[in-house]
Amino acid sequence: MAMVYVTRHMHFNAAHRLHSDVLSDPENEQLYGVCNNPMGHGHNYELEITIKGEPDPVTGMVIDLKELKDIVQQVIIDRVDHKHLNFDVDFMRGIVPTAENIVVAFWQQLKDKIPQGELYELKLYETPRNMATFRGE
Amino acid sequence: MAMVYVTRHMHFNAAHRLHSDVLSDPENEQLYGVCNNPMGHGHNYELEITIKGEPDPVTGMVIDLKELKDIVQQVIIDRVDHKHLNFDVDFMRGIVPTAENIVVAFWQQLKDKIPQGELYELKLYETPRNMATFRGE
Amino acid sequence: MAMVYVTRHMHFNAAHRLHSDVLSDPENEQLYGVCNNPMGHGHNYELEITIKGEPDPVTGMVIDLKELKDIVQQVIIDRVDHKHLNFDVDFMRGIVPTAENIVVAFWQQLKDKIPQGELYELKLYETPRNMATFRGE
Amino acid sequence: MAMVYVTRHMHFNAAHRLHSDVLSDPENEQLYGVCNNPMGHGHNYELEITIKGEPDPVTGMVIDLKELKDIVQQVIIDRVDHKHLNFDVDFMRGIVPTAENIVVAFWQQLKDKIPQGELYELKLYETPRNMATFRGE
Amino acid sequence: MAMVYVTRHMHFNAAHRLHSDVLSDPENEQLYGVCNNPMGHGHNYELEITIKGEPDPVTGMVIDLKELKDIVQQVIIDRVDHKHLNFDVDFMRGIVPTAENIVVAFWQQLKDKIPQGELYELKLYETPRNMATFRGE
Amino acid sequence: MAMVYVTRHMHFNAAHRLHSDVLSDPENEQLYGVCNNPMGHGHNYELEITIKGEPDPVTGMVIDLKELKDIVQQVIIDRVDHKHLNFDVDFMRGIVPTAENIVVAFWQQLKDKIPQGELYELKLYETPRNMATFRGE
Repeated sequence: MAMVYVTRHMHFNAAHRLHSDVLSDPENEQLYGVCNNPMGHGHNYELEITIKGEPDPVTGMVIDLKELKDIVQQVIIDRVDHKHLNFDVDFMRGIVPTAENIVVAFWQQLKDKIPQGELYELKLYETPRNMATFRGE
Repeated sequence: MAMVYVTRHMHFNAAHRLHSDVLSDPENEQLYGVCNNPMGHGHNYELEITIKGEPDPVTGMVIDLKELKDIVQQVIIDRVDHKHLNFDVDFMRGIVPTAENIVVAFWQQLKDKIPQGELYELKLYETPRNMATFRGE
Repeated sequence: MAMVYVTRHMHFNAAHRLHSDVLSDPENEQLYGVCNNPMGHGHNYELEITIKGEPDPVTGMVIDLKELKDIVQQVIIDRVDHKHLNFDVDFMRGIVPTAENIVVAFWQQLKDKIPQGELYELKLYETPRNMATFRGE
Repeated sequence: MAMVYVTRHMHFNAAHRLHSDVLSDPENEQLYGVCNNPMGHGHNYELEITIKGEPDPVTGMVIDLKELKDIVQQVIIDRVDHKHLNFDVDFMRGIVPTAENIVVAFWQQLKDKIPQGELYELKLYETPRNMATFRGE
Repeated sequence: MAMVYVTRHMHFNAAHRLHSDVLSDPENEQLYGVCNNPMGHGHNYELEITIKGEPDPVTGMVIDLKELKDIVQQVIIDRVDHKHLNFDVDFMRGIVPTAENIVVAFWQQLKDKIPQGELYELKLYETPRNMATFRGE
Repeated sequence: MAMVYVTRHMHFNAAHRLHSDVLSDPENEQLYGVCNNPMGHGHNYELEITIKGEPDPVTGMVIDLKELKDIVQQVIIDRVDHKHLNFDVDFMRGIVPTAENIVVAFWQQLKDKIPQGELYELKLYETPRNMATFRGE
């Protein structure tokens, strides 16, 4: 028996604005700086989804990565791609769209939708230089 | 004598919406699809600036790339980074922010600001998969 | 007026074997080395398609890159992705599938299918280290 | 004392076909889709080998990475590079060459060949979008 | 509550020479090969700093990544960028500058300077092919 | 007939210092800034060599890229890899090792050593952000 981790890389383009409703405008501006720009800015987000499990002895797969791709496309990507994360995404309502908060929100959406193996890790690159990782801890 | 091309890579994060004021809303939606989302979306734009010239016999440089970086930072990046290209950028007013139009607009801003050599080419990656190039032709 | 080049990046996975029917087996083995392995090997090919044209004054686009993507998908990618280039691709019959020959063959398929602008350049990465470019010259 | 992980990145190009001998042809076609193409397809595989250990107080190295490279070259790369994984690789006989199965098979070959430190992790990228990781669990 | 890992990517360019003062010149040459070249060689080092913590319920951040960037810039980058690691860096004196030793030395400098969350991992790429990771174990 | 450009990507690691013998020390420091650090610094240089020619009708190749690799390895890489460009490289004596000057110097070494096709372009990446290109103009 062998425990293997398989990872699928996906991407989406979205706008966001870092702004907390419990802070004043000057506090938001001081805290988030240019990320608080009222009209928002945006990113090419890269998302890596890792599933942990033992490869099926017949198929040799932890999970069919084409099936995983279709699930993530439907559960996550179709709801955030070419959207404004502060306004257009129902499961992000009231959440400041930092990379940390986004990756935890994605985990909540995905964790019960994985048909084989278990969701092990989500990595979200906001830029090639900034990334957040969540493992359900 | 030798003609050398030097290239500096820079980046900025911005929101935009593809929407033409001379088209109706249904025409815009049909033409631009998800890129017409009313609240906008965004990208990690990558910009490559190429200067053409003969290296100075003393310094060995076509242009000081640190100086070029400072110029592009001031003339372009500071005005578009963490902005919404449809609303926040004066020199983009009334221009549909396709990669094609952005790269031509950047050229207009930069072409007379290069102190050594001449501006040869601008490449603008909207995503790692989509890119526009302008050479002033 | 402005002449802009827009580039779309696509990819496909294929097997191939370098083997020339006009050479003997020892000549093929000497010429192509490990690339002549009888059972073949394979690559994650990356293809960059560049279209040259003036952006439409209304749409701001040289060509709709989504439309270009669909055309290349149908004309090229669907016929070579997850295939063996020596056996499964009708328009490659009798052609040694070097990167040079593939990129010229792709050009023949694509050149009359571009609805706006003109096909300017195809770049084919066989690996991140080896690439062939064709401009219809 | 300090536990450090050192990683070496290597690559190989190979053909493969996803096909299970215990399934019928229609079952294989339904399960693996285009990956079941009879003539196979191929990839530029990227392999990351991570060794865990304490740096030697004199040399400052967990393991000489040039020596690790030579070992992996001999034990793995020379046997799979420019090969068809279903036919040409003795230690892959009878194994469906999914990324999961390949990475576990590589681990079996490598685990007793590491002269310093211990094999901690193998990552195998089938494409830039699909990856399998094994840690000997 | 959620434990999230945030990562910031930074870089610096430096020269180094692998040479141990407790070994003879021939021993050094045999051990380190071309890396023992007396005049040294150099790299574009890439450094990934990962902080572990729970996102602040108000700000949505484990740590302000701009603040982390400024700290790493001051504590590490400004002291090693465009330097020779064997001669110019006070905290590297007497340490053979292998990737393993550098990453442990960086950890010692950084571990008490993180104002929120805790330092979880440093990854140091010497080249795109060679990397060392330290987690304070 | 078809004119195809084939490109081979190679790399080397080297130290250098920007310092002009015809300038005073203060002038050098002002001109080159941190790049004038007396002990030098270094880079992972990436070199792209492009050959232009018509594919041979029998072999399908402009030039055998393995042969090209061997030539560049011998003529360039073996003489600069793991070296200090100011001291260890005979053909760089007296040349300030800017990217511009290096790429022209490499061209002089390579231009008469290409057995098939003609040398069309050299690109030298000093870092992923700075690059110089020479086409023999």
